[in-house]
Amino acid sequence: MGRVTERRRVVRIRDGAVTTRPDTLVAEEPMEIRLNGRPLAITMRTPGDDFALAAGFLVSEGVLARADELQSIVYCAGATEDGGNTYNVVDVKLAPGVAVPEITLERNVYTTSSCGLCGKASLDAVRTQAHWPIDDAAGPDGATAPVRLTPELLASLPERLRAAQRVFDRTGGLHAAALFSEAGELLDIREDVGRHNAVDKLVGRALQKGRLPLARTVLMVSGRASFELAQKAVMAGIPVLAAVSAPSSLAVDLAEETGLTLVGFLRGTSMNVYAGVDRVALPASVAGRSG
Amino acid sequence: MGRVTERRRVVRIRDGAVTTRPDTLVAEEPMEIRLNGRPLAITMRTPGDDFALAAGFLVSEGVLARADELQSIVYCAGATEDGGNTYNVVDVKLAPGVAVPEITLERNVYTTSSCGLCGKASLDAVRTQAHWPIDDAAGPDGATAPVRLTPELLASLPERLRAAQRVFDRTGGLHAAALFSEAGELLDIREDVGRHNAVDKLVGRALQKGRLPLARTVLMVSGRASFELAQKAVMAGIPVLAAVSAPSSLAVDLAEETGLTLVGFLRGTSMNVYAGVDRVALPASVAGRSG
Repeated sequence: MGRVTERRRVVRIRDGAVTTRPDTLVAEEPMEIRLNGRPLAITMRTPGDDFALAAGFLVSEGVLARADELQSIVYCAGATEDGGNTYNVVDVKLAPGVAVPEITLERNVYTTSSCGLCGKASLDAVRTQAHWPIDDAAGPDGATAPVRLTPELLASLPERLRAAQRVFDRTGGLHAAALFSEAGELLDIREDVGRHNAVDKLVGRALQKGRLPLARTVLMVSGRASFELAQKAVMAGIPVLAAVSAPSSLAVDLAEETGLTLVGFLRGTSMNVYAGVDRVALPASVAGRSG
Repeated sequence: MGRVTERRRVVRIRDGAVTTRPDTLVAEEPMEIRLNGRPLAITMRTPGDDFALAAGFLVSEGVLARADELQSIVYCAGATEDGGNTYNVVDVKLAPGVAVPEITLERNVYTTSSCGLCGKASLDAVRTQAHWPIDDAAGPDGATAPVRLTPELLASLPERLRAAQRVFDRTGGLHAAALFSEAGELLDIREDVGRHNAVDKLVGRALQKGRLPLARTVLMVSGRASFELAQKAVMAGIPVLAAVSAPSSLAVDLAEETGLTLVGFLRGTSMNVYAGVDRVALPASVAGRSG
């Protein structure tokens, strides 16, 4: 059974001082909701209250309105190849006579194997789909040295993201994502009600200009770093993802497995580096402690 | 063509003073992404850069990696019944030879008509699916008087939501949703990496306990009020949605059409009432100005 939080080691930089310490992350795992045995939706969620999540989702979609319309909710057994249960696939059976709606469209498409659905399968799917590794030697200018960002440069990004947000100033209601060069130059910024949309718009514009993979760039996002945003960075070949707020456990796992540098809680002169600390130029005296 | 922002009249309450003024909201509209003519995904987005959004989404999903794999991106014409174009349906044609992936699963299921996809269609879909109207006379205690909340009670909710967040304290990384009675009693709270999941869990637990519709309650959320969250409130029969941050245009439209009270920017002693101001107990001297 999944847990609500997970522990990871993190490199903390604050006012130039570097420490390595354990950190508590919110757990994120995929969950598939099936309706009468038929796959209906996948959501990235924090484990816990999974049956309530499935039931509430079906209320929101107009399928359920009363408890007696529900026959049963169970975890699907034998969900992994070795017959184990990931507790990430939930099947909702409707009571006899309750209409099964014609469900049509979708968002957040994940390519999943028919057997098993878990964090590891999500990581494997991204690795399989990626068209290129994250590679500092794949930059447009022929640079081959590893990307190295100073804490000062990273610390300057949130304010510059904020300053470039035009629509936020008028509405206070938008997520933003910006792409910076390794020298800190603002390359592009998009705003959207959806965090994932802002990143998709950045990446789509890069594709249209023939600029993928986005080697030697930093993706800065205004909110949290979820698995989905880390996935989008990896798929676009972006080597550094920086977020104002916390990452999830699965975002950190994906960063570690793919070589993505993941910086969170980037506020003032302070930040946490959750993965890929090699791209952060730590003071030499303390760099050795960050293993 | 959709706009990035929209103007609405809003009732602003600050330190007991009430004013009515125009406010700028971020626009939110559904967009359907089709791949070679086949519906693939719907996302609620801020209009603009729609072709880039579609292209970037397909990069994230591993379908596209280079500009030359893209043959064309167009808005589907004749998307509405009268042949008009909503500019909310985008068809991506892949270049010959580019593999079309087997896309499987989904999240955020919207029941859409085959003709047209726009904000209005989204509102109609919720209205059609709702099992009950928002009705203050449908409370569990037989109360029939309209729900009336004081600004003081509303202003107390964010702090109480925050105080009840257990996992946030450890991770700083979670969205929360709480259900309060009209007297301000905390009925339930859920946390999740996904905002929609936290609300689904609340609603699902209420369904399992036979407590739907959730008449005479307030749903308080830690972030923004999107269309999707307003939809979940309406589908559960919740009469008041309060958010710490901004609502989208479509959330306000849905609230107006369904009789949902929508409060945003609930911070300190200040808040904006975007719809359903009848449920907010304004000082009598100024209530007449809030039309």
